[in-house]
Amino acid sequence: MRWDELDREACSVARTLAVIGDRWSLLILRDCFLRVRRFEEFEARLRITRHLLADRLKKLVAAGVLVRVAYQERPRRYEYRLTEKGLDLNAVLLAMVHWGDTHMAGESGAPKLYEHRDCGGIFDPTMCCSACGGAVTARNIRILDGPGAASAPAANDG
Amino acid sequence: MRWDELDREACSVARTLAVIGDRWSLLILRDCFLRVRRFEEFEARLRITRHLLADRLKKLVAAGVLVRVAYQERPRRYEYRLTEKGLDLNAVLLAMVHWGDTHMAGESGAPKLYEHRDCGGIFDPTMCCSACGGAVTARNIRILDGPGAASAPAANDG
Repeated sequence: MRWDELDREACSVARTLAVIGDRWSLLILRDCFLRVRRFEEFEARLRITRHLLADRLKKLVAAGVLVRVAYQERPRRYEYRLTEKGLDLNAVLLAMVHWGDTHMAGESGAPKLYEHRDCGGIFDPTMCCSACGGAVTARNIRILDGPGAASAPAANDG
Repeated sequence: MRWDELDREACSVARTLAVIGDRWSLLILRDCFLRVRRFEEFEARLRITRHLLADRLKKLVAAGVLVRVAYQERPRRYEYRLTEKGLDLNAVLLAMVHWGDTHMAGESGAPKLYEHRDCGGIFDPTMCCSACGGAVTARNIRILDGPGAASAPAANDG
């Protein structure tokens, strides 16, 4: 399979990776959730080349995950903001945070804490069932074919 | 920043990406959750070179996410199984599934459905607060520095 065929796979993981599977894109998005918006800020935090950063920002804008907005005239300058589609990636980032906190944080503990504004509690992001609210783990789910399932691996259903 | 410095960042997203941020690793893990275990099965499903597949499997084993287990003697053959650390990546994959189902599935709908064994319901994976059980979104959380926070971006705390 070629990487650019991923969005044609009948698989929502593959389709998601077609947008955010690039190694730097998720770090750019992490920074967006930390309210980083300007090119120079991304550059200073990520320490990647301007060319690479510009390319990834352009792709995230093309995918509708970020939007480029002018924040100043004369000279005109732009910043990058998460769209609704981008804000919905929050759960993907939080799931990664939780796994990293659990398995990679070492003795010093979690680098960041997350407060739930609705209840005021510091929380661990927990994957739950939308039907009953109970916790979802690898051991208590069953995966079934859905309406968009296709027998052919590269079916034209994207 | 170089990619191999990621696991030293005081950031759980970066540390997680140091393990699963490679573009093919997450697709291998997706297949593991679909109970694919053998080299030839991964190869047939992913259509990547044997060299690339062997390299990624080796890295996932080294990271403690998969374990290589002999399932046959004469000739000895191995399969790859998720460890507990690997099974904990379920939430990352489910968050990607949910985003892909919501934003990338098109008219044909979700390729897979997820049944919660505990309640029997078909569910959407929902990120929840471990304190109150309420839904967590980008708009109702606040990010604070935790015990493992460091001012230096590449602090030696991993």
